[in-house]
Amino acid sequence: MLHFESDYLAGAHPAVLDALIKANGEKLPGYGADAYTESAKRKISEACGNGVRPEDIAFLTGGTQTNSVVISTMLRDWQGVIAPTTGHVSVHEAGAIEYSGSKVITLGQFGGKIPAPALRQYLAGFFADPNHEHMVFPGMVYISHPTEYGTLYSLSELTEISGVCRKYGIPLFIDGARLAYALACGESDVTLGDITRLSDVFYIGGTKVGALCGEAVVFTKRNMPEHFMTSVKKRGALLAKGALLGVQFDALFTDGLYFEIGRHTLDMAAKIKNVFSSRGFDFLTDSPTNQQFVILGDDLAEKLSESVGFEVWEKTDADHTAVRFAAGWYTDEDDISGLASELDKAAEMLRHNS
Amino acid sequence: MLHFESDYLAGAHPAVLDALIKANGEKLPGYGADAYTESAKRKISEACGNGVRPEDIAFLTGGTQTNSVVISTMLRDWQGVIAPTTGHVSVHEAGAIEYSGSKVITLGQFGGKIPAPALRQYLAGFFADPNHEHMVFPGMVYISHPTEYGTLYSLSELTEISGVCRKYGIPLFIDGARLAYALACGESDVTLGDITRLSDVFYIGGTKVGALCGEAVVFTKRNMPEHFMTSVKKRGALLAKGALLGVQFDALFTDGLYFEIGRHTLDMAAKIKNVFSSRGFDFLTDSPTNQQFVILGDDLAEKLSESVGFEVWEKTDADHTAVRFAAGWYTDEDDISGLASELDKAAEMLRHNS
Amino acid sequence: MLHFESDYLAGAHPAVLDALIKANGEKLPGYGADAYTESAKRKISEACGNGVRPEDIAFLTGGTQTNSVVISTMLRDWQGVIAPTTGHVSVHEAGAIEYSGSKVITLGQFGGKIPAPALRQYLAGFFADPNHEHMVFPGMVYISHPTEYGTLYSLSELTEISGVCRKYGIPLFIDGARLAYALACGESDVTLGDITRLSDVFYIGGTKVGALCGEAVVFTKRNMPEHFMTSVKKRGALLAKGALLGVQFDALFTDGLYFEIGRHTLDMAAKIKNVFSSRGFDFLTDSPTNQQFVILGDDLAEKLSESVGFEVWEKTDADHTAVRFAAGWYTDEDDISGLASELDKAAEMLRHNS
Amino acid sequence: MLHFESDYLAGAHPAVLDALIKANGEKLPGYGADAYTESAKRKISEACGNGVRPEDIAFLTGGTQTNSVVISTMLRDWQGVIAPTTGHVSVHEAGAIEYSGSKVITLGQFGGKIPAPALRQYLAGFFADPNHEHMVFPGMVYISHPTEYGTLYSLSELTEISGVCRKYGIPLFIDGARLAYALACGESDVTLGDITRLSDVFYIGGTKVGALCGEAVVFTKRNMPEHFMTSVKKRGALLAKGALLGVQFDALFTDGLYFEIGRHTLDMAAKIKNVFSSRGFDFLTDSPTNQQFVILGDDLAEKLSESVGFEVWEKTDADHTAVRFAAGWYTDEDDISGLASELDKAAEMLRHNS
Repeated sequence: MLHFESDYLAGAHPAVLDALIKANGEKLPGYGADAYTESAKRKISEACGNGVRPEDIAFLTGGTQTNSVVISTMLRDWQGVIAPTTGHVSVHEAGAIEYSGSKVITLGQFGGKIPAPALRQYLAGFFADPNHEHMVFPGMVYISHPTEYGTLYSLSELTEISGVCRKYGIPLFIDGARLAYALACGESDVTLGDITRLSDVFYIGGTKVGALCGEAVVFTKRNMPEHFMTSVKKRGALLAKGALLGVQFDALFTDGLYFEIGRHTLDMAAKIKNVFSSRGFDFLTDSPTNQQFVILGDDLAEKLSESVGFEVWEKTDADHTAVRFAAGWYTDEDDISGLASELDKAAEMLRHNS
Repeated sequence: MLHFESDYLAGAHPAVLDALIKANGEKLPGYGADAYTESAKRKISEACGNGVRPEDIAFLTGGTQTNSVVISTMLRDWQGVIAPTTGHVSVHEAGAIEYSGSKVITLGQFGGKIPAPALRQYLAGFFADPNHEHMVFPGMVYISHPTEYGTLYSLSELTEISGVCRKYGIPLFIDGARLAYALACGESDVTLGDITRLSDVFYIGGTKVGALCGEAVVFTKRNMPEHFMTSVKKRGALLAKGALLGVQFDALFTDGLYFEIGRHTLDMAAKIKNVFSSRGFDFLTDSPTNQQFVILGDDLAEKLSESVGFEVWEKTDADHTAVRFAAGWYTDEDDISGLASELDKAAEMLRHNS
Repeated sequence: MLHFESDYLAGAHPAVLDALIKANGEKLPGYGADAYTESAKRKISEACGNGVRPEDIAFLTGGTQTNSVVISTMLRDWQGVIAPTTGHVSVHEAGAIEYSGSKVITLGQFGGKIPAPALRQYLAGFFADPNHEHMVFPGMVYISHPTEYGTLYSLSELTEISGVCRKYGIPLFIDGARLAYALACGESDVTLGDITRLSDVFYIGGTKVGALCGEAVVFTKRNMPEHFMTSVKKRGALLAKGALLGVQFDALFTDGLYFEIGRHTLDMAAKIKNVFSSRGFDFLTDSPTNQQFVILGDDLAEKLSESVGFEVWEKTDADHTAVRFAAGWYTDEDDISGLASELDKAAEMLRHNS
Repeated sequence: MLHFESDYLAGAHPAVLDALIKANGEKLPGYGADAYTESAKRKISEACGNGVRPEDIAFLTGGTQTNSVVISTMLRDWQGVIAPTTGHVSVHEAGAIEYSGSKVITLGQFGGKIPAPALRQYLAGFFADPNHEHMVFPGMVYISHPTEYGTLYSLSELTEISGVCRKYGIPLFIDGARLAYALACGESDVTLGDITRLSDVFYIGGTKVGALCGEAVVFTKRNMPEHFMTSVKKRGALLAKGALLGVQFDALFTDGLYFEIGRHTLDMAAKIKNVFSSRGFDFLTDSPTNQQFVILGDDLAEKLSESVGFEVWEKTDADHTAVRFAAGWYTDEDDISGLASELDKAAEMLRHNS
């Protein structure tokens, strides 16, 4: 059986695992006060530049937790967060944002992205509405980069969105659960420095990029909410052995490992894409990142699923379904050649049967 | 420097770490659907007996998170949770229970424990109060075993509390963050089977007993809340790589490791206790478990802290402070002899200076 | 100045005010335990029929409060409420539903209504999605009758929606803030009995139908949430002098006053409609109820607003705006003739100026 | 039957009712934008002095709602509110503060009051605790004046508490549900100006002082939370016909009516007190305000309850119970003489029976 179901299938990247093994016996202070966590913060702050200091960074365990903690500590009582209808916070977090008492205000999207003009129009309309004091105020903009559909914002798109946010005094939050796969993408003109500069807060995903767990939140404008650690604890999100996160991120930001994982994974994803495109398959979106959304005939999807794991995404018509193939740090050439071979076998068997 | 500050100073017990290393490369389904998690649940259900099934068990990341998830998914809208004034949920969780919208109703305690008669009196009084519909209904009883002060409930105490809870139809929740240190205690007559039988839900702590992170919640009466996984996700508490928890608990419940860690740690704690009692020091509570609360003169505490790490607990009078020395899986004979030696050295220096 | 800005411009209908004056000096038990409240419940239960008992009814103060209390006490932890994008709970309650921790799941609407097929498709799609345990479960359907756009569900539409809800075991909640204006409408084939039979809970609006404040919630299937009064108090929604609501609803349901207010107001609304339709104006929706959404040229709207109060709703094109004229129990023939006269004067002045 | 069960037994004071009758037919803008509300705010701001402006005042419907709205909009995420164990927010609000996500931190009390030294000690201890970042920060002090036990803070007590709050930068919130009965008390040296000056926010209770419903919140330091109206709406606490509150408070603050109601009610309460004290009964607290807590033998309490309504408060020993007699604007000389007569009759019958 081959596995492309998600980008969190295997454990830690070997270098991250090694770091955990080496640090394991050390007696370290809890709750992130250890030297590994400090070192990780220092390295990340250096990678981000733009005046980010180690103390502007915090580690959390997973993506939904991070979105919930960041959004709920940054919104004011009368505000909600704007997100695309396909945003992770809008759909796949079981209502975690609402659990914190705040509304997700959804805007229409294209390929998983909010167009800046739609954002501008929404904000102008909101404040022009004489009844807006009876409505949830827009208090933050949430976007994902890469998006949930594998697409990327261009530097000019991101700059425009950031400009709209600043005009309205609303922070821009970038969900970087898969940030490595944006930063390593040759087609993208957006750097980590750009992300840092243009956003007010973002996170660098670890769970989907070589860690066992862990996300690094970066408050880019010296704007970490006051007593953030207490708020994290209040949300059940503070690890006693905080070094578990610090050690991993320290490894990920040593010798460019985070970026190397990005590049390797994108290479593998490009080869997955090629397996399908070279055989004439269509795609749901044109993704330059580590998730490929291929449209398969339903009978082929069913046959292929016997030997290859992938995730069913959505029906595209009566006989076709978009399915997702994801690459991770652990995806290798054997997976790719295996996929090509199983795909051809499945197609061949369908031809025989029909 | 010697370290006794807490019981979560080092990483994973070597056998747990080995299990993580072995499983690391495997591609596993996410969110706890992997075989390690299944195996861990099976082993825990067997250890608990009393009809507990694998599907009655769930893994979470840390203690405050576990308390918050369990309490908030089991309470009804009009209910709160009863806890001793010294309970972890009452004091040291930054308001995590209140964050979920529920009140912690505190009862006076003795040595960290709620006496059953006090519980009975509170409940009788509540329902006798003609205004009780304007008050938060008691909807659960929370106790810790061992308590936050290192003490243990006897089987007869636990049986009585459980009986009161059943009389009022209120679930009993036992916080077992340090459960291994209760179960391995020679002075205790309470077994894991008793805990299972007498409680409605409890958790088996991993973070403080050899895991990097992780707590195993056991719903003992086939009473896991409906759609529990969705509620866990809603609270930002669902790990993508759920196997991180499953692998660790699978190791902890293989060949009795969990109990072995308990025994070793209690041996070390008894030796810590002896270091102090043999020198005539008093204790805040008579703890038979892994936390020892010693009363030190303030000048001795200050001197000792230069070479030995411990936690300041509370002032006991103008010149004395209760401090905590905790043992963990990693505490060894060298730590004990070092402690004795540093203690004598510190006392000697104080004598010289005075 | 003439006033059509809303349907809550004046105080209580004279008969309701008289009832308040008569009861004012009586010493009555608090929190709704008084005889007026009992009488009001009995009269409403009789009007509803279908097995509704007095104890199935509760009084609250306002519409947003009622929506929030009903939805948050009926949803389970893992559920949210489905509502049209234009629903009051979706837009104009400042996030009150989210404040209670629950998501409003919006469905596209036509004229303020959810079409049953769209609801059916959404529900089928939700449960077919293999990832739905990571999403907010649909746990209730919220519709307004009349809608926020003045439109009405037909009996067949309501029957179909109710059938879909029952198929999925999801309660149907009907917001009846303006219910009188649906029930008194000659074009409508939906009776109070139908509302009672087809919904699981609904409310009979008082604030917009002759009361100073107050809404009557009817749980139609003996399904009032347990300890509802405690939950109401927890939400800050329990009036100490509960008789304020009971006395008013007792008057509204004496001698058919509630329905009479409905008929009078609809007569006035029809005359408002005629003022505009007879002069060739277009309408945003074809409303048979007490709110009329007329499309005015922007210059006319501005001129008219000098002598007539109405509410600006939304821009329909560069030069036109939909504005709302609402009738209430206090609207009379002088208001109508005055409106016609002011409209003609304003149009005349614009002709002169151009 | 005579009635002393509470201070919210009858409707509005006649002068308040008259004001409602007079304003009833007027078409007024909603949500508190009407001229009566403006006038009421102006009059209250003048009565408070100390730089309070009309825009620093807001009207809400009831006491629990007011406490919940004020506390939840003023606390920061990491904070809770300090209150005496007997405070209304601690006991009799069904968990309304916790519903908003915040903890009530209880301090021991004497006669319903927090002693300033206890407050000072708690605050000093909290910030000295090296683990305080894992705990709920004290973010506000809540006291009631008069307290729930009818007692009053002296000016020196209030000044001291206010000083402690300022030292720690924590707002002082005074629950004035029965403020009139403190201000009109001859024994008290605390004026409305003192309340305004020494608190950061307080409310002037209407429900228990002659209104049908309504409480006036005064933010004394130009510190009304931003977008307060939106937060009020979010909590389901915004009345559409806001004039209902404005008209009543305008009447209450015209010609000193609020203070006159206070004086009349205190006169009646003093006579109630005298009925019991002249007959040698003991009291639970020495209350100079409108609630009298008398200790009755259980058999006398039972006999008396056949003809006189009062509220059972708490058992004081095996055979005695403290019961509450409350006076209101509607209590008159006939009530007092009736009470004396019924008390003597009940005592006489008990003597006969024994």
